[in-house]
Amino acid sequence: MKIQQVLLSLEELPKEWYNVIPDLPEPLPPEMDPPERPSRIELSRRITLKPLINQSAQKDRWIDIPEDIRDLWVKVGRPRPLSRATKLERFLKTPAEIYYKREDLSPTGSFKINTAVAQVYYAIREGAERLVSSTAAGQWGAAIAGACGLGGVSCTIYFVRFACETRPYRLIQMLMSGADVRRSPSDKTEVGRRYLKENPNHPGSDPITNSEALEDAIKSVERGEEAAIARGGATNYVVLHQSVIGLEVKKQLEMVEKVPDIMIGCVGSGSNFLGFISPFVKDRLDGKTTTRFIAVQTEAAPSMLKGEYRYDYGDAGKLTPLVKSYTLGIDYKFGHSYAEGLRQHQVSPILGILRKHGVVEALSYEDEAAFEAAKTFYQVEGVLVCPESAYAVKAAVDLALKAKETGKEEVIVVNISGSGFLDLGNYGTTLYKL
Amino acid sequence: MKIQQVLLSLEELPKEWYNVIPDLPEPLPPEMDPPERPSRIELSRRITLKPLINQSAQKDRWIDIPEDIRDLWVKVGRPRPLSRATKLERFLKTPAEIYYKREDLSPTGSFKINTAVAQVYYAIREGAERLVSSTAAGQWGAAIAGACGLGGVSCTIYFVRFACETRPYRLIQMLMSGADVRRSPSDKTEVGRRYLKENPNHPGSDPITNSEALEDAIKSVERGEEAAIARGGATNYVVLHQSVIGLEVKKQLEMVEKVPDIMIGCVGSGSNFLGFISPFVKDRLDGKTTTRFIAVQTEAAPSMLKGEYRYDYGDAGKLTPLVKSYTLGIDYKFGHSYAEGLRQHQVSPILGILRKHGVVEALSYEDEAAFEAAKTFYQVEGVLVCPESAYAVKAAVDLALKAKETGKEEVIVVNISGSGFLDLGNYGTTLYKL
Repeated sequence: MKIQQVLLSLEELPKEWYNVIPDLPEPLPPEMDPPERPSRIELSRRITLKPLINQSAQKDRWIDIPEDIRDLWVKVGRPRPLSRATKLERFLKTPAEIYYKREDLSPTGSFKINTAVAQVYYAIREGAERLVSSTAAGQWGAAIAGACGLGGVSCTIYFVRFACETRPYRLIQMLMSGADVRRSPSDKTEVGRRYLKENPNHPGSDPITNSEALEDAIKSVERGEEAAIARGGATNYVVLHQSVIGLEVKKQLEMVEKVPDIMIGCVGSGSNFLGFISPFVKDRLDGKTTTRFIAVQTEAAPSMLKGEYRYDYGDAGKLTPLVKSYTLGIDYKFGHSYAEGLRQHQVSPILGILRKHGVVEALSYEDEAAFEAAKTFYQVEGVLVCPESAYAVKAAVDLALKAKETGKEEVIVVNISGSGFLDLGNYGTTLYKL
Repeated sequence: MKIQQVLLSLEELPKEWYNVIPDLPEPLPPEMDPPERPSRIELSRRITLKPLINQSAQKDRWIDIPEDIRDLWVKVGRPRPLSRATKLERFLKTPAEIYYKREDLSPTGSFKINTAVAQVYYAIREGAERLVSSTAAGQWGAAIAGACGLGGVSCTIYFVRFACETRPYRLIQMLMSGADVRRSPSDKTEVGRRYLKENPNHPGSDPITNSEALEDAIKSVERGEEAAIARGGATNYVVLHQSVIGLEVKKQLEMVEKVPDIMIGCVGSGSNFLGFISPFVKDRLDGKTTTRFIAVQTEAAPSMLKGEYRYDYGDAGKLTPLVKSYTLGIDYKFGHSYAEGLRQHQVSPILGILRKHGVVEALSYEDEAAFEAAKTFYQVEGVLVCPESAYAVKAAVDLALKAKETGKEEVIVVNISGSGFLDLGNYGTTLYKL
């Protein structure tokens, strides 16, 4: 039988995370405090679980993964397969070998569960009884709600009110996990009440949900409650947790004796992409490989292509510290895209440095082109990817066609960050005008 | 690490199917021809792929699985894990060990893909250029459309018009597979036109889609076209194909040195349940084990509990031969249930005999109780099951609680036939009145 899937045994599940920060060509620029008071750095530290603060500042390359986190990963189906796109290769008539990592097999629908269960583990260890978070499209909300359900930790999620209407399945998924889901703006926070006063039917927005979650966490901690914030985007510790993706891929490629020529992932703030490439960066910088790392963005939010490299706020509520990276500006008006996870104004500082030094290349597409590629992928490979991953698939197809022109037998590896089952409506609208 | 998942390597994927028919306590009653003409047996043979007709009459227990089918199975993610419900056990405080088979990990959403890729393989081998089928809720439609996409075979699907509106995601999924989906009743068949004439906005029904698909296949074959019918329900060859589920489970239980005390599956016509238990029946009949086989039905269609054992039509269009089994009658008015796959009037003749001889027990529940169990399962195990499998989960929970009363350390194994991602709307309506 031709190799179609590379599977790892449970014993081969990584026992250590890989921290890419020591490999970076220059030191990470530190967080800065904006003029607003109280200190945003202080606020952030007060609501973040201590082990996570420590992980963000780690200088070691290898960091032990607690046994209980590995146990939770097994529960949610890790290790995950690396599949070879044999039928896509045949369809494209390309000499390239295309592999794809199956993060879509997550029970909550995306790779976000990898860090969600880790954060829940640390919450339990630190005695936090409640995690507070926010979600715009719902993938992160589903992951943190699911992880809290597994761990028996209370979970409060601020979910954009408009999305509760347009994405009811995500809402129901979070409710089934036992989460307390609050339509944002809500009457539970000052900032929420302010927006509701303005407009009782306010549709909400990503920045408002962020601010509500931050306010909720800050006030709870001030009241002496055991609460903390949970984050899904590409903060340093999230990137560390997501390195499990790349570590599995590395082992799987070694099993079939391959070195990647090209690694591709979609990028909003960068956590799936960085987790995927982390263990491969050093070999490239050391000249041992010539692996190209390709970050794929939506033209609706091309931060790495059209953004500036500078300090900026992480959230529009200006409650978080300033970080330095490529940014479109906190007030950027995004173009249309159903790949909600890619509509971010700023990438992680780690990714910023890799981009600045030319280690990471960037590409962008529009929904139509990406979704057509996803359709082809579903037909020939049988895997329905989420709109975000559709962008990565599109780039893989284009690069495989390029390999056909040049005749190069390149090894292309692409990370499928999530499943498209709950996004079929968006595919229907874009592809079939349904 | 405590055992949470039992994984098989690709080499351990079954190489032979297990045919349970030779194990049955009495011979299968033959199909009969109803008074309608032309002969329904003849019609059925004309539109069924020859290897499938042969498989339905096989007397051997073990039947070779073609390499290409195993290859397609690997493509769609076989072998699938057997998971241990460690957290559910803890939640229920039961001494029972609960295992569940992950057929929900299918890329099209359910176990139906197992037979779909086999039927597509035989279509290619026999030179059939087009497969015709029908679907009521869409799970089978998604599977056969997906398999046809993988195999490069044309696919025509008659899909209940009303379901196209209420289940647009399934429609889009089939379209993305490249299938020609026809809203039924359609203007493409005589029977469809008859119903449309009656009511241009006719919502359609399962029997009408069946009749449309049969008419389409029959007329195509009469015109000399290379077309055939594809079937998802529990005909003999479908049960044979689905035995891959039970064969994997048997191997996985042997790896952890367990013999099942109780095996549980949901039953509409019986294909997932029979595939699951097939390789375990002989040992029970030979007295080597005392495994209980429990078929779970919905009170909306309790064919094994309230039906009669007699000859009946397989479809309301009366285009198929008569088969003998437990039936509620072809004109039975089903009660309400969102577990559409369980709303069948009749179980397979194989299951009929096993039930008649007391080898299989039957239970029934209502949606509310089943869906509450699914919610618990999602919270503690992180796996979102389809409404049909919710019934099986409910039975597993009840039997595990019974084991707690008796103190028995029973091994309970339950088949999760599909994923609930596309059924979140039904869960929301039932559990949260959304």
